[in-house]
Amino acid sequence: MEKLTEEEINARLEQLTGWNREADGKWIIKVYRFTEYLSGIAFVDKVASIAELELNHHPLIAIDYKRVTLRLTSWHAGGLSALDFEAAERFDNALGR
Amino acid sequence: MEKLTEEEINARLEQLTGWNREADGKWIIKVYRFTEYLSGIAFVDKVASIAELELNHHPLIAIDYKRVTLRLTSWHAGGLSALDFEAAERFDNALGR
Repeated sequence: MEKLTEEEINARLEQLTGWNREADGKWIIKVYRFTEYLSGIAFVDKVASIAELELNHHPLIAIDYKRVTLRLTSWHAGGLSALDFEAAERFDNALGR
Repeated sequence: MEKLTEEEINARLEQLTGWNREADGKWIIKVYRFTEYLSGIAFVDKVASIAELELNHHPLIAIDYKRVTLRLTSWHAGGLSALDFEAAERFDNALGR
């Protein structure tokens, strides 16, 4: 797993919607807002299933009532890798399915 | 919903296992560790269901791989209420069921 360059990170971020880089640069983060609490929980279930069974790459998940926050980094790469961006895209695609 | 006194909070905390008070005194917090990632997620599902359908009182939930953290407070009471401790007990009882 290789750490992406700054150029690669910026290019990939541009292809995503709602994902931002955290201050230390090692994480990407997105906040999803739901109209129903249990819709947010159902989304977390999908994210967890994809993370565990398809990617073997797990985001930090925070649930603050109807707001679900995902954070991604690649510990082994010491920063952001291609897998973080693949995961971000997969999680976005899982929304509403 | 009434804020509990310090004495009441301490008495109730003693009846729980693994719950601690956060520094500002307005929250109780517990970290649950699981041997499987999806077991932690299944626990979150139970917690969310109890929170939404039975208590109408929602903890902050953080999922950091196999570690699930719950935090409770009562906004309307400006601190900890009896409902926080009832919720804590219900979440503990949901573990492993």
